Amino acid sequence: MAKQRSKLKIIPLGGLGEIGKNMTVMEYEEDIIVIDCGLSFPDEDMLGVDMVIPDMTYLEENFDRIRGFVITHGHEDHIGAVPYALQKFEAPVYGSRFTLALIEHKLEEHKIKNADLRCVAAGDTVELGCFKVEFIKVSHSIAGALAVAVTTPVGVVIHTGDFKVDYTPIDNEPIDIERFAHYGSRGVLALMMDSTNAELPGYTPSEMELGRTFRSVFDSAEGRVIVASFASNVYRIQQIADVAVDHGRVLCFQGRSMVMIARIAMDQGILKLPEDRIVEVEKLKNYEDREVCVFTTGSQGESMSGLFRMANANHKLNIGKGDTVVISASAIPGNEKAVGKVINQLFQRGANVVYDRLADVHVSGHARREELKLMMRVVKPKFFIPVHGEARHLHHHALLAKSLGMKEPNVIVLETGSVLELNARSCKLAGTVVSGNVLVDGAGVGDVGNAVLRERRQLAQEGMFAMVIAIKSSTGELAAEPEIISRGFVFAKEADELMEEAKAVAREQSLMFAACDRSDWGNIKNVIRSSVKSCLYQHTKRTPVIQTVFMEVE
Amino acid sequence: MAKQRSKLKIIPLGGLGEIGKNMTVMEYEEDIIVIDCGLSFPDEDMLGVDMVIPDMTYLEENFDRIRGFVITHGHEDHIGAVPYALQKFEAPVYGSRFTLALIEHKLEEHKIKNADLRCVAAGDTVELGCFKVEFIKVSHSIAGALAVAVTTPVGVVIHTGDFKVDYTPIDNEPIDIERFAHYGSRGVLALMMDSTNAELPGYTPSEMELGRTFRSVFDSAEGRVIVASFASNVYRIQQIADVAVDHGRVLCFQGRSMVMIARIAMDQGILKLPEDRIVEVEKLKNYEDREVCVFTTGSQGESMSGLFRMANANHKLNIGKGDTVVISASAIPGNEKAVGKVINQLFQRGANVVYDRLADVHVSGHARREELKLMMRVVKPKFFIPVHGEARHLHHHALLAKSLGMKEPNVIVLETGSVLELNARSCKLAGTVVSGNVLVDGAGVGDVGNAVLRERRQLAQEGMFAMVIAIKSSTGELAAEPEIISRGFVFAKEADELMEEAKAVAREQSLMFAACDRSDWGNIKNVIRSSVKSCLYQHTKRTPVIQTVFMEVE
Repeated sequence: MAKQRSKLKIIPLGGLGEIGKNMTVMEYEEDIIVIDCGLSFPDEDMLGVDMVIPDMTYLEENFDRIRGFVITHGHEDHIGAVPYALQKFEAPVYGSRFTLALIEHKLEEHKIKNADLRCVAAGDTVELGCFKVEFIKVSHSIAGALAVAVTTPVGVVIHTGDFKVDYTPIDNEPIDIERFAHYGSRGVLALMMDSTNAELPGYTPSEMELGRTFRSVFDSAEGRVIVASFASNVYRIQQIADVAVDHGRVLCFQGRSMVMIARIAMDQGILKLPEDRIVEVEKLKNYEDREVCVFTTGSQGESMSGLFRMANANHKLNIGKGDTVVISASAIPGNEKAVGKVINQLFQRGANVVYDRLADVHVSGHARREELKLMMRVVKPKFFIPVHGEARHLHHHALLAKSLGMKEPNVIVLETGSVLELNARSCKLAGTVVSGNVLVDGAGVGDVGNAVLRERRQLAQEGMFAMVIAIKSSTGELAAEPEIISRGFVFAKEADELMEEAKAVAREQSLMFAACDRSDWGNIKNVIRSSVKSCLYQHTKRTPVIQTVFMEVE
Repeated sequence: MAKQRSKLKIIPLGGLGEIGKNMTVMEYEEDIIVIDCGLSFPDEDMLGVDMVIPDMTYLEENFDRIRGFVITHGHEDHIGAVPYALQKFEAPVYGSRFTLALIEHKLEEHKIKNADLRCVAAGDTVELGCFKVEFIKVSHSIAGALAVAVTTPVGVVIHTGDFKVDYTPIDNEPIDIERFAHYGSRGVLALMMDSTNAELPGYTPSEMELGRTFRSVFDSAEGRVIVASFASNVYRIQQIADVAVDHGRVLCFQGRSMVMIARIAMDQGILKLPEDRIVEVEKLKNYEDREVCVFTTGSQGESMSGLFRMANANHKLNIGKGDTVVISASAIPGNEKAVGKVINQLFQRGANVVYDRLADVHVSGHARREELKLMMRVVKPKFFIPVHGEARHLHHHALLAKSLGMKEPNVIVLETGSVLELNARSCKLAGTVVSGNVLVDGAGVGDVGNAVLRERRQLAQEGMFAMVIAIKSSTGELAAEPEIISRGFVFAKEADELMEEAKAVAREQSLMFAACDRSDWGNIKNVIRSSVKSCLYQHTKRTPVIQTVFMEVE
């Protein structure tokens, strides 16, 4: 027993086998820390679901041992589940100033007060139980991104968070390779590293590389320039805004999250813009088109976003002929068609659109293979655990480690819910804990499960056809005409005939109620149900969700 | 009047502003020909829809003038609506032997007999009314692809169909550039050209270029090789099968369309495989894994396809450790996530997966910018009409033509339904005809419209909540307990309390029926409906489709 307690446990509760809802538990004896606490966006088959968060049952069972949440950066897949966690657990949350500001905004929306948020900066070390956590500066597509080096009783574990290697970042604060090397030279037990781009050869280009494209876009733009990007990519906004101001343009921010996050970044001094060049949308009419640059949400084609509404004449700023739109982002998998639709809409309105297929307007925030090799070489871990990736990314990341000479048992591909036990010399898989997807829909957290989703999918496919039959309980006669509720099945006004026929089928079969013994009524109901179903199928070759309700009235 | 009738009309009924359901009407005086007759796959918001075909109202109004359908090749977006057209119109259908075989198969499925299918080959010319149609060999990702040069009373119109320029095709029958040049040298009135890859610089690589990848995959594969591709890409199948046979492997075809199309291609002598190397799936057990190559459907991640089932242990051939899977296709926009899921599943089962992100296993069938320029230069049309593309593709294709010196009014971006009138000297837009999407769902063609889709989307989001209230018409008293039908809203077993509360709300409010004058019943119904709605929203923050049915019983 004593021996078992002297091992370090690493338990991913999300982010393995998926890109999204990152959450990793580290546990030693009585102490638990949690690295990241993110959400996923629902898959297309999770109909009506707002978001997906990790199953936190394991933490609930061990709530009194949680020493803190350590957040690497402020993207949704790292912070999105914080409000749900803080509704259950009282524990401090550590993150950079920018990360915490984004979390704070979330907590306000959830009306969570008195959260214990603790600001850290690169170079800081905090002690959480037996863990000493040092934060290390990394490059990523958001301000305030940090990796963590966790000194545990059995050795150092480094978790990169999301990162890339950018030697020429816009804020001139590059990733702190020296610090990773420092740990590497003293011996690192395990490295957990971002696998997002593990399939891709070479290096991810520096953010700086985009400057040339932006300058040439502004050089040739004769009307307004509208930029769609992620507001949290402060460096991108900074870079484009600098070019815009150089070109004598005022800056206007549109879209809820763009306005909110840009404001936070300016307040924190991360985003440095001349206040007198920032104007409200209502004031834009005081400027010529060639004096205007608008930043907006909507780079993913989201249907209520700023860009979408501007492209569909549903915004104060309607995009049209003469405007240049820059979509400075790439489509997240699953959003390709939505982004394509917005681009088409913009071309149809006469705008010029610049997007990643045509020009260098976006670089990834994740390290490619050469950068991953660099990190492996300087950290020189005993054990390597690829994280943040689908099976394919983890697979290729593991192969990459092996190509650098790491041996099979020391390269460990975990799954969400796996328990990995380590000591200074060895590691082994030691079972699993409860884990998985918890679906959030409206106020419900976890109450939409597979049964409900299956019903939604059925309804989505062919709609619903319900028939209500009221029978007098005394005589078995129909108490009223059968009523039909049909939604999403056929256009009711054009299907009168079909409805009448279905009613007739029901009416006719209902005669049996009166003719038969009460004990047969169950059978009769089944017969009616299947007669209606086959009547509908015969005419339409469709099988809506069919429901028949029998009401017995006195 | 005489003047108007002496113009040529070009009327796209599909394929402009979209990639899909290609269909173009050419009309001169009393003669109409139709080039291509395709379908689109439904957008993700067209819930439950099986396919989309062009609105053919214009052809219905002019059915007696249709001299023929001219089909450029056998992809679904060119032939998919043929059965629906032939149910309405009696006209001959012209296409290559392979194209017609695919159409024939479709007609059998639709139980359409006695269609007048007329086989043509490259170099053939047919007369359809006043039109002389010559078929010209092009390269594309399907066997039997042809462009058409239509000699009309006002000049020659060339429609490329889908094409690329491949100087080293697998069957050694390259695109017939000379023939295009021949027409070009004699003067071409209008060129209608494939815009799919008009955004992309350079040349699409030759099919032949993939050979090296395939050889290296087979050289290093120690177990079975499973290839997912489109069966109609006969050249791809040929190329891979040749390598497989060279490596001493037998060939096995899986998936309905793969088996069917490979059989057709072999019967026609287009696909040349040694019959004695083809084995049924049941016989594979007689061979070592390293002697097996399987061709399957499922390159798009389709959920009932061969590859999907093999990846999910739901097929006689279950893929696992030691197997190499080659996905020799790229994801069609919208399918990226489905393809990604299959790849992940395969890695999880231990297979090695080779796909386009990692290796050159696919080339496009569509011409890129340099090839498009070549075609423009040899055809030298007076008017240029980009076709087969979304707004963005058409836009860039038009710009490309202008960059070669064509003047604005001679470069015409049409929309589906536009009527373009041409004579030998000029062209102009002359109104529009009825056009658009006709949705096919089960047996219904066009009966699912926006109203039904809107309902399906609502149902898909939050499900359905229906409440049935039976009232005695004489007294206004409840005749029975309110009944609830809830589907896709909450998991009913866990929501007993909510259901009871909703019933209680309805029951309580229903007391008003008895207390009030009959003329107020309409109001009471509205009050009950909205009380139930707000009760549900309060508890769940969701708004299912709410339907209340009031039955009056005697």
